[in-house]
Amino acid sequence: MISVSIVNVTSYTGVELLRLLAQHPQFVVTSVTARSAVGKRLDEVFPQLRALEHLPDGTRAAVNPAIVLTEVPEKTDLAFVCLPHAAAAESVLKLLERGTKVVDLSADFRLRNVAIYEEWYKHTHPAPSLLETAVYGLCERYRTRIAEASLIANPGCYATASILALIPALAAGIISPDVIIDAKSGISGAGRSLSLTYHYAEANEDVSAYGLGGHRHLPEITQELEAAAAAGGHPVKSALRVTFIPHLMPMTRGILATCYGDLKQHTTSAEVRSLYAEYYADEPFVHVVDTPPHTKWTYGSNACFIHPLVDARTNRLVVISCLDNLVKGAA
Amino acid sequence: MISVSIVNVTSYTGVELLRLLAQHPQFVVTSVTARSAVGKRLDEVFPQLRALEHLPDGTRAAVNPAIVLTEVPEKTDLAFVCLPHAAAAESVLKLLERGTKVVDLSADFRLRNVAIYEEWYKHTHPAPSLLETAVYGLCERYRTRIAEASLIANPGCYATASILALIPALAAGIISPDVIIDAKSGISGAGRSLSLTYHYAEANEDVSAYGLGGHRHLPEITQELEAAAAAGGHPVKSALRVTFIPHLMPMTRGILATCYGDLKQHTTSAEVRSLYAEYYADEPFVHVVDTPPHTKWTYGSNACFIHPLVDARTNRLVVISCLDNLVKGAA
Amino acid sequence: MISVSIVNVTSYTGVELLRLLAQHPQFVVTSVTARSAVGKRLDEVFPQLRALEHLPDGTRAAVNPAIVLTEVPEKTDLAFVCLPHAAAAESVLKLLERGTKVVDLSADFRLRNVAIYEEWYKHTHPAPSLLETAVYGLCERYRTRIAEASLIANPGCYATASILALIPALAAGIISPDVIIDAKSGISGAGRSLSLTYHYAEANEDVSAYGLGGHRHLPEITQELEAAAAAGGHPVKSALRVTFIPHLMPMTRGILATCYGDLKQHTTSAEVRSLYAEYYADEPFVHVVDTPPHTKWTYGSNACFIHPLVDARTNRLVVISCLDNLVKGAA
Amino acid sequence: MISVSIVNVTSYTGVELLRLLAQHPQFVVTSVTARSAVGKRLDEVFPQLRALEHLPDGTRAAVNPAIVLTEVPEKTDLAFVCLPHAAAAESVLKLLERGTKVVDLSADFRLRNVAIYEEWYKHTHPAPSLLETAVYGLCERYRTRIAEASLIANPGCYATASILALIPALAAGIISPDVIIDAKSGISGAGRSLSLTYHYAEANEDVSAYGLGGHRHLPEITQELEAAAAAGGHPVKSALRVTFIPHLMPMTRGILATCYGDLKQHTTSAEVRSLYAEYYADEPFVHVVDTPPHTKWTYGSNACFIHPLVDARTNRLVVISCLDNLVKGAA
Repeated sequence: MISVSIVNVTSYTGVELLRLLAQHPQFVVTSVTARSAVGKRLDEVFPQLRALEHLPDGTRAAVNPAIVLTEVPEKTDLAFVCLPHAAAAESVLKLLERGTKVVDLSADFRLRNVAIYEEWYKHTHPAPSLLETAVYGLCERYRTRIAEASLIANPGCYATASILALIPALAAGIISPDVIIDAKSGISGAGRSLSLTYHYAEANEDVSAYGLGGHRHLPEITQELEAAAAAGGHPVKSALRVTFIPHLMPMTRGILATCYGDLKQHTTSAEVRSLYAEYYADEPFVHVVDTPPHTKWTYGSNACFIHPLVDARTNRLVVISCLDNLVKGAA
Repeated sequence: MISVSIVNVTSYTGVELLRLLAQHPQFVVTSVTARSAVGKRLDEVFPQLRALEHLPDGTRAAVNPAIVLTEVPEKTDLAFVCLPHAAAAESVLKLLERGTKVVDLSADFRLRNVAIYEEWYKHTHPAPSLLETAVYGLCERYRTRIAEASLIANPGCYATASILALIPALAAGIISPDVIIDAKSGISGAGRSLSLTYHYAEANEDVSAYGLGGHRHLPEITQELEAAAAAGGHPVKSALRVTFIPHLMPMTRGILATCYGDLKQHTTSAEVRSLYAEYYADEPFVHVVDTPPHTKWTYGSNACFIHPLVDARTNRLVVISCLDNLVKGAA
Repeated sequence: MISVSIVNVTSYTGVELLRLLAQHPQFVVTSVTARSAVGKRLDEVFPQLRALEHLPDGTRAAVNPAIVLTEVPEKTDLAFVCLPHAAAAESVLKLLERGTKVVDLSADFRLRNVAIYEEWYKHTHPAPSLLETAVYGLCERYRTRIAEASLIANPGCYATASILALIPALAAGIISPDVIIDAKSGISGAGRSLSLTYHYAEANEDVSAYGLGGHRHLPEITQELEAAAAAGGHPVKSALRVTFIPHLMPMTRGILATCYGDLKQHTTSAEVRSLYAEYYADEPFVHVVDTPPHTKWTYGSNACFIHPLVDARTNRLVVISCLDNLVKGAA
Repeated sequence: MISVSIVNVTSYTGVELLRLLAQHPQFVVTSVTARSAVGKRLDEVFPQLRALEHLPDGTRAAVNPAIVLTEVPEKTDLAFVCLPHAAAAESVLKLLERGTKVVDLSADFRLRNVAIYEEWYKHTHPAPSLLETAVYGLCERYRTRIAEASLIANPGCYATASILALIPALAAGIISPDVIIDAKSGISGAGRSLSLTYHYAEANEDVSAYGLGGHRHLPEITQELEAAAAAGGHPVKSALRVTFIPHLMPMTRGILATCYGDLKQHTTSAEVRSLYAEYYADEPFVHVVDTPPHTKWTYGSNACFIHPLVDARTNRLVVISCLDNLVKGAA
């Protein structure tokens, strides 16, 4: 059994991790930490966790912690860090130094280029040397390296949906290096920080675009799409041209990305479907489907559904992908 | 391993059962039947099931079926019947005759009194003799008998929430035999039959009461509450007086029942909380809590949260209970 | 034309008032004030107000204000005060002194008994002498006095729904002075203050009860129901026994109150329907209906729908009422 | 006063028209017809209409009809036809023959080219000669002709949002004739026909794309965008290349269209904002705004909000527009 700690368990991803790990036969959550609620019993803070105590088959769940701590105990094999960026890096450094492996859910170790990180996140990176050893935790791309890594940078939710939708086409070189990603996200993606924007009476019965000046998931999307194109033998000569427009949807969970690219040659929907099906043939969590996927299909699961098609009137590639932003995209 | 068949898998409860059983180490779903979609691959009908193929730990789920059948194969240990009442009884009869144990999710075997069944369901019961051997599947009341039964009548969702909320008080004889149940349900409770009432544009941003002439869960609530009062040594002399008003809420899943009763003596919230905590001390799926519970806490789980309190100004008992109407209340 | 100012226009009720008054032929909004956003153009703060500039018939709306002010200008005929309690009373005092009539949307002048006010609102009332002259703004009860008043205390949203549902029965003396009000409210009732409880990801797909220790609308409900019973010749001897349990619903607007009382004599649904229809025969905004009403019917309107019935098995009166909590109940 | 009839009042657009016309000083609805509910009082069919009887100012609404008829009475000045296509054309023909002016809300008279109509709607057009005289009812384009027309073809909701978003850029010739429209619609757009897709339990907490083989609003979008480009002196040489992908959102009302086009020259957001502001300077119902608009801003109103910007990294034009699909886009 691998002993696990969840750092900042009071975030949405922290609670969700607890749920996922409770059902997992190889992990046992032995401690949790937080910045508030320290010293309280975890089920006082989240009474809903009592629903996890007993699995549907009557056995008890693999979760131990009772009291919220301030620090991860020594002798913890693995820590999931659910802190915001900057705070995350500090915590990661400490954990690595004493030998605990880390999955960091923040953006601190996703970008390999420190200059790009500092441009988008507006502060000095506290541990640029770690950017080389950190592995971008997209198992469909880096499975082997993830298994060996001591620091895994968990991809962003928008990034995961966008990258999985576009890498087969870019790696095969069938589209021009110029894409549009129109993404739709549920509101849990914004986390638990208070903001009028995410208040029910504002967000319900409403759709809007945001982040129009540039969303922080854009550089990691670009980095990974360029890497995939190069790995596929179709390197992008100048920088990949990506327009990424995120939208807020009146729902709690789920991301749907609708991606557009120009096909270099006349292609049919059957051809792209078969290209994608082959690319993901051995991937347990990516499902290439024949009908438009629904975010609801992914609720609570680690699945990503992808539906590629050709808009025949314009010979444009359209790829629709979806996943649960609290599971596949964040943990 | 127990081999399981799901009859009428295309209902909401059928799909939900598939999800629950996929994660269960002792059951393997070996077949599914339906009235439509026969002969199709199940993952053509429900592409979302592909998200269940692989558990989060990478192992494969315990689900076999590929093709939707018309009949449950011989040599099936257990069948879950997800048909509407009347159709359910017919199917149950056939299954029992050849030795398959049955959990019936319809109302056909919940009421022990055939006259009451026929009054509320308006048709002749096809197998009144089975009413004696059928066990009402509320494990908090009949766990031992359920384990031995060949026919289990799964309780209704409203009934489960209401009965669990009120039996400790009635069994202890602390309230008068006169209760009000104001219940709030998500819309999945109505199943997949088409009706304008359940259309999104009608049901969204709307709350309303329904079933005001008498909802069919009322007789099973009355039957079980009277049985609990008698078992607790406080039999109800004339019939228990129950007003049950269900409401439709703009959400998919969840039931919250707010139950009201008059306390016979001056009582405090602490006293009723401790009575309830003791009553459910050994129950893995019932959680007595100190704060008002949220339906969201139960999403996808088998848990029922109960919060009893005394309205001090009126010495009235108020008990709030909630559960997931597609899990605890139906399967 | 009556010149109107809206004090604290940045509240939900403030914006809603602007919408209602824009369409009204006899009022013109000549100024608005707020505690933040002062000095800004109102349509910068709320771009959606531009949708009100032009009525559907192409005429321009009767709204003047451009800039958010700190103080109501002299020579304003009428001010709607949309401040929280305590702050409201201070503002009301100033406005009345210089001759501006006031509709106060807070709770500061709803209770005639200053001791009860101070018990529930936990602070000293700044102007107890005004409690005598303030008129409780429920037009179905005090229409004549409202027309002449210089200070109108606008009823709470829960209070309006509950009082309209129960006064015909109490005034006619057909029920015992012992009632239960199980109320369901949309989330806009909580206003625009930030709280995790009202965040979309918390409140969506969720139903819960709250205010179980006693909700502040209870004393005004009791005050008005007792007054109605007395006015109908059926005064309540000791205090009316009211249990009031509010619930939060996953929707933006609307309140539905389900009220329960014991009928003194055997009565039919037809009899209570006819009693209610007669009571409200001349009321333009109260509609007694034959089917369970939906909160959605009242969206954006000043209507209250009421459906009284008798639960025949228990001879209990059940009255269901609903309204838009941002219109009928607050403005 | 202009006497109005609503044909097929039981559709969502029919009821919405009733609401809008009730408040309009120049129209009086004198009759309504339907295919079901004939002979019933309208407020039996829609009890919510009683909320419209009295306007907020206490005056009575300009709506007469009591009984649902089968046919529009003679001497009706204007009829709004809310029937599905094909059925609509038949009704329109009859009404025009006897001299009643018609606003047709179906697609039957939107396309000027009968061959395109028959290709997309798969049946022979019953009155091709009328296609020449019918006016496409987009007042921002054809205001003068609409005022004189005897047959107005009301634009589709997606079409209105898309066309208003793109015509300023195409008429000014600043983008290539190659655009992508990623549209998001609330569920009321699907009307009241029963379908599992629009059931609450399916559509809630879900986002998906649909109509991927080609949505019927595409030909009217193309027709009007090409006309606008030509009128602006920038005719499209070969056919305009339009990819149009509609998505279903979990909300009742509202459409948001995110439109993408390649700018021919380096351009700034300020420049396109000023181009758009000028184009719509005199339009009462189109509002060019500086921040991303929200569908909620348009709820129940005739407004369309438009936010054009340049994605500086790619020099791509992005235009976001939104409206209420039951008001601006359909009536």
